[in-house]
Amino acid sequence: MTDRVVLAYSGGLDTSVAIPYLAEQTGAEVIAVAVDVGQGGEDMDVIRQRALDCGAAEAEVVDARDEFAADFCLPALRANALYMDRYPLVSALSRPLIVRHLVAAARTHGGTIVSHGCTGKGNDQVRFEVGIGSLAPHLKVIAPARDFAWTRDKAIAYAEEKGLPIDVTRKSPYSIDQNLWGRAVETGFLEDIWNGPIEDVYSYTQDPTVPKDADEVVITFEGGVPVAIDGETVTPFQAIAELNRRAGEHGVGRLDMVEDRLVGIKSREVYEAPGAIALITAHQELENVTVERDVARFKRNVDQRWGELVYDGLWFSPLKKALDAFIAETQTHVSGEIRLTLQGGRAVVTGRRSEASLYDFSLATYDEGDMFDQSLAKGFVDLWGLPSRLAAARDARLER
Amino acid sequence: MTDRVVLAYSGGLDTSVAIPYLAEQTGAEVIAVAVDVGQGGEDMDVIRQRALDCGAAEAEVVDARDEFAADFCLPALRANALYMDRYPLVSALSRPLIVRHLVAAARTHGGTIVSHGCTGKGNDQVRFEVGIGSLAPHLKVIAPARDFAWTRDKAIAYAEEKGLPIDVTRKSPYSIDQNLWGRAVETGFLEDIWNGPIEDVYSYTQDPTVPKDADEVVITFEGGVPVAIDGETVTPFQAIAELNRRAGEHGVGRLDMVEDRLVGIKSREVYEAPGAIALITAHQELENVTVERDVARFKRNVDQRWGELVYDGLWFSPLKKALDAFIAETQTHVSGEIRLTLQGGRAVVTGRRSEASLYDFSLATYDEGDMFDQSLAKGFVDLWGLPSRLAAARDARLER
Amino acid sequence: MTDRVVLAYSGGLDTSVAIPYLAEQTGAEVIAVAVDVGQGGEDMDVIRQRALDCGAAEAEVVDARDEFAADFCLPALRANALYMDRYPLVSALSRPLIVRHLVAAARTHGGTIVSHGCTGKGNDQVRFEVGIGSLAPHLKVIAPARDFAWTRDKAIAYAEEKGLPIDVTRKSPYSIDQNLWGRAVETGFLEDIWNGPIEDVYSYTQDPTVPKDADEVVITFEGGVPVAIDGETVTPFQAIAELNRRAGEHGVGRLDMVEDRLVGIKSREVYEAPGAIALITAHQELENVTVERDVARFKRNVDQRWGELVYDGLWFSPLKKALDAFIAETQTHVSGEIRLTLQGGRAVVTGRRSEASLYDFSLATYDEGDMFDQSLAKGFVDLWGLPSRLAAARDARLER
Amino acid sequence: MTDRVVLAYSGGLDTSVAIPYLAEQTGAEVIAVAVDVGQGGEDMDVIRQRALDCGAAEAEVVDARDEFAADFCLPALRANALYMDRYPLVSALSRPLIVRHLVAAARTHGGTIVSHGCTGKGNDQVRFEVGIGSLAPHLKVIAPARDFAWTRDKAIAYAEEKGLPIDVTRKSPYSIDQNLWGRAVETGFLEDIWNGPIEDVYSYTQDPTVPKDADEVVITFEGGVPVAIDGETVTPFQAIAELNRRAGEHGVGRLDMVEDRLVGIKSREVYEAPGAIALITAHQELENVTVERDVARFKRNVDQRWGELVYDGLWFSPLKKALDAFIAETQTHVSGEIRLTLQGGRAVVTGRRSEASLYDFSLATYDEGDMFDQSLAKGFVDLWGLPSRLAAARDARLER
Repeated sequence: MTDRVVLAYSGGLDTSVAIPYLAEQTGAEVIAVAVDVGQGGEDMDVIRQRALDCGAAEAEVVDARDEFAADFCLPALRANALYMDRYPLVSALSRPLIVRHLVAAARTHGGTIVSHGCTGKGNDQVRFEVGIGSLAPHLKVIAPARDFAWTRDKAIAYAEEKGLPIDVTRKSPYSIDQNLWGRAVETGFLEDIWNGPIEDVYSYTQDPTVPKDADEVVITFEGGVPVAIDGETVTPFQAIAELNRRAGEHGVGRLDMVEDRLVGIKSREVYEAPGAIALITAHQELENVTVERDVARFKRNVDQRWGELVYDGLWFSPLKKALDAFIAETQTHVSGEIRLTLQGGRAVVTGRRSEASLYDFSLATYDEGDMFDQSLAKGFVDLWGLPSRLAAARDARLER
Repeated sequence: MTDRVVLAYSGGLDTSVAIPYLAEQTGAEVIAVAVDVGQGGEDMDVIRQRALDCGAAEAEVVDARDEFAADFCLPALRANALYMDRYPLVSALSRPLIVRHLVAAARTHGGTIVSHGCTGKGNDQVRFEVGIGSLAPHLKVIAPARDFAWTRDKAIAYAEEKGLPIDVTRKSPYSIDQNLWGRAVETGFLEDIWNGPIEDVYSYTQDPTVPKDADEVVITFEGGVPVAIDGETVTPFQAIAELNRRAGEHGVGRLDMVEDRLVGIKSREVYEAPGAIALITAHQELENVTVERDVARFKRNVDQRWGELVYDGLWFSPLKKALDAFIAETQTHVSGEIRLTLQGGRAVVTGRRSEASLYDFSLATYDEGDMFDQSLAKGFVDLWGLPSRLAAARDARLER
Repeated sequence: MTDRVVLAYSGGLDTSVAIPYLAEQTGAEVIAVAVDVGQGGEDMDVIRQRALDCGAAEAEVVDARDEFAADFCLPALRANALYMDRYPLVSALSRPLIVRHLVAAARTHGGTIVSHGCTGKGNDQVRFEVGIGSLAPHLKVIAPARDFAWTRDKAIAYAEEKGLPIDVTRKSPYSIDQNLWGRAVETGFLEDIWNGPIEDVYSYTQDPTVPKDADEVVITFEGGVPVAIDGETVTPFQAIAELNRRAGEHGVGRLDMVEDRLVGIKSREVYEAPGAIALITAHQELENVTVERDVARFKRNVDQRWGELVYDGLWFSPLKKALDAFIAETQTHVSGEIRLTLQGGRAVVTGRRSEASLYDFSLATYDEGDMFDQSLAKGFVDLWGLPSRLAAARDARLER
Repeated sequence: MTDRVVLAYSGGLDTSVAIPYLAEQTGAEVIAVAVDVGQGGEDMDVIRQRALDCGAAEAEVVDARDEFAADFCLPALRANALYMDRYPLVSALSRPLIVRHLVAAARTHGGTIVSHGCTGKGNDQVRFEVGIGSLAPHLKVIAPARDFAWTRDKAIAYAEEKGLPIDVTRKSPYSIDQNLWGRAVETGFLEDIWNGPIEDVYSYTQDPTVPKDADEVVITFEGGVPVAIDGETVTPFQAIAELNRRAGEHGVGRLDMVEDRLVGIKSREVYEAPGAIALITAHQELENVTVERDVARFKRNVDQRWGELVYDGLWFSPLKKALDAFIAETQTHVSGEIRLTLQGGRAVVTGRRSEASLYDFSLATYDEGDMFDQSLAKGFVDLWGLPSRLAAARDARLER
């Protein structure tokens, strides 16, 4: 039987060209797999047909939008996942899902090789290959851009030579990756980190400086995940899509940062993630209300490590699973409602209420009804500070 | 010699009443010490005179604004100190400075008791008393509000009875603490956490929803601290004050959160910290550019712990000192310029440049001049993922 | 109905005297509850009768040895719980179990007050009271030693005055707490921390310096807990008891340390925990074989925090539950056999084998059969060190 | 000018053969550099002559024993550096020192290439190459064993063919690396992890099961480093050498473990480190006496990370420097004396005393002179447990 290469297919120039090129280089048939993670843009059937037109033996399109929302975005939300306190892991979340479908396709179609379009200096190669190695260690991986030093110019020349049905003239200055959870943009002029982004860079969000009336939204959470918006029950996909729309309208979730890549370099990245940022903002405040202090303090470390792991391509690692178990336990009572005002680029919490609240009015109030026994404080303060006081006395004694 | 009580004096009702009350209860003379930490409001000489009018044996006013900026706010900036990822430690920073001056006054005036106006359910009692115990363990502490169950109504009655020169009718609905680094507001209606704050609550910031032209500011840092604004050299105090003014004008730095107090309860807090938030935003991004990845990852834990310690009243603790040593080492090269746009409640970084940058265009670019050797990636990816792949293979083998 | 006090009863002088004393002070009936956590010593029925003879309205004895082993000691083993890297949490583990039974007894007998014999400067008061507050917040707690400043001399005088059936002459110089997991000893001469312990202090372990033939034991673990010893299936209780006997015979598990108490002071403690130390030694090495590297590294932090929490009286805290969830996930494959040699105070691992091993001979060997692809290393090393190299180059450039 | 290769030369077969081989492969002259890190064995002049006899253009021997002790072993001691809680980083400490001297030799002799004898599956290649890249990024690195797939058999054949002055028949079954801080042994039969080590494996330590009289030693520390033994002032080198001798005599410091290598595999390692283990044991207990609780808790994380970094080849990394700054601050008062008993494979602390002690007899004692105010405890306990109690009450209310 002919060998088969399963290709992560986007419909774009690079992976379209990869179809005949991989066939040529490996002598294998190419199975193109395109996964809908909510990236919008072209119709998936158009993409499917293009793969076939480029010579794919088979072309599969997978609508993974609900799966992406439920199994990848929501865990990130529960972990308040913000790499370097900023970036909500847009691409890092879709890669393991695509891996899952590539491996499934390899099983279905008898593939022995998997291929992706990533370069050798980004994070996504790691996410693809470590993921594939974890789910299907027997599969070989080829990354033409990296392994055959493939460039865009070579790709265009090859496409023209082979007469591939791709519009090579439609050259965007932007390198974009987008999905339901957000959108990443790289482009030449932003590689000068003193340059600011221009409005043209953005697509998920509108200009936050254009005055608009505020939009007030109430998000209901159960166990750390959104289940209703303004009282209407929503699926995970709907929650994120709706908040992308409404928060994007007000320019929420634009991010511009210098970032530490796993491969050891710093890069400049611009992101938009209106729904993600609005949801994480709401979720964090609901945790403030419902999660006990020591849990909250430790969870910050867990959340940070979770984000680093997923960023670093280790979605399928055992540590990720163990952190998930920790997080799951903390989310039991993260249930209630958060009222958020969306306006001028900001998602601001203005109200929170929860059956599971640990905020106790009778302990917190300075007005009538105060139940807090202040006589306990003296002993607490004295013993709390005792180690510090003993150390200070020692230092003084030794004249340090 | 008569005993002397050194009182942390604010000029307000509670501590004014405390002057004769402490004298009465302890038979001691009262030394009132008022510290200017940039809180604005009344003239310090007026405050001084009021203390004397209320019966203080001596009244000192200390202009500690530069000291506060340099020795307390800047260390917090270098630690990106945001308790619960939000609160820039406004009150928690001023307390140890006031402690320093209370202890100095006790030495000067032969005081044996120190007194403060805090209640028994807040954090500030801890900050005062652990601080005093560390700097001067022999001093006794009295907190009338807590130790004598003193209330506002009792205070008013006592003031009227004694004919103290205080306007007891000017009752503000707000309980406020403010200094150069920010402003904290508590008030009855915000104790219902579903209620949003109203515009009247704010004083350091203007309404961010009122359209205004953006203000672009360039902040120059040396070793993690701001040294110039728009090219003009500034002292630490000037840097913060200037950014309070300019960022406050655009409504930057309003915060509304449920917070975990050290004494074990959750409380609702509203803060404004325009300068602090603008500076921390700029500082974090400059760290992104100049601090190595592993340092940055570990420093997040250090920063979090630093914030918790200071929030928890442990400014003078040995752990705080050791974390400071870590942080100092990381800040050596946090030098350069950050361009920030202030508008609509947001402080957004749009540019960064630094002689000490670790961002390397020739490694990051996807255009010409790319020096990154992509052939190294394959080996890296394979060994990076090896532990995870071996674990996955084991799990599969054991059919888990 | 008469109020009822549920007393944690040990059978010793202090809690025996507490029976009539509590009745006198509170006007309530006293329910004595003695819990067998494997402490050995007197027969539980003798203890029960003594409580009644001292005036208890009811006296319950609970055989909780299996519960203690399974629900308290084994979780500690899975967490490799060693406070300050040394102390296996002997007393800290029994207190929450006793709390469980006190609360159950309060429910059964209609108790409204719970009482324990701890002083105000130790850790156990915290473990009792935070535990009771978590399981039954409505119960009041009285600690005579602390709350009534009760001393040993007062207790003896009271016992003689009331003619209580207690031998007050049998004064041991040692203050001891012991259970299945180990034994803690405090005594006057050890309060001078330059003094070494003497042989008389020990009871669970024999002198390790007396030459004996080595004892080789093979412990089989499933999911992180011991299930067989030398091939014989054992219950958790049996596993610990058997290793106490065999490791104790060889003087394994003696500990002598200065320790940080929760109440803020340092104290000198001597422990013996032969079974605990032997089991933890074996468990750690089985983890080395079966747990993936990143999990192992993160778990050290989790284990440390788990030990601190339990030491600090927070067994029933939500953070403890969340850490347990993390640990449970990591233990799935901690299965296999460890061969241990017990001799001369040491428990030394000499062999390990496991179906779930991540040790791969074909990757590790330097002999024939080596499957490790060394050509991958170059790329790995280069990118692994890249951030460090870039920082070093920057430092050199700036002549730091 | 002819190119020059600076070779890390051990005197053994592999690096001896590398001399003519590197010359042949690169056309360059070979400068052999042998560094004495206290490994004992052959005279350094003999080693030097052998290098020349094998064709080295120059051969340098460096006595770096004092430098190794002071600049590498002592920092490890202050960090209580035990990778995976066991391994005191023997080889990981010598590599950066050797790197320092290789780079110096490259500067002196105009070398452009550095070479080492490590394979591609160990940790040492990383330590060499990341170190060299940090100190001298322009130097190229060649590792014949890895880069030319060089094996022992090839080396022997080559040596015989070239008539090199090396005894190729003296084949040891052991692969050994040793220095002042300890000794690492790998060998074929230990690659079966069920096999125990045999006595023949060891050289730094004598059989701990042979009965001997105990040796009592008092170590004096200043600022976390040993300065005297039994009252005699010692240099760092002397302190370690003396304890190697005395603790080694009693079989202290034998270690046998499965270890996580940086390159992603697990390996079986046997170590001996009598002096290191004795010193770390003493240092840890002196920290227990002199370091404040919160510092001690946080330092465990720092120490762990320090050990991981150094193990992982990142001695010259910026994070290592920042952790060093933290540790330095914590060691100010780690001064005093520790009495240790060495016997039967164990180094046991039996006494500690320090001017800087935080152990306070008057707070710790249960006898007369007790100054601890137990009345403070009630309030402390209540507020300490409040968050946990509130969470438990919430859970109960929601019937979880």
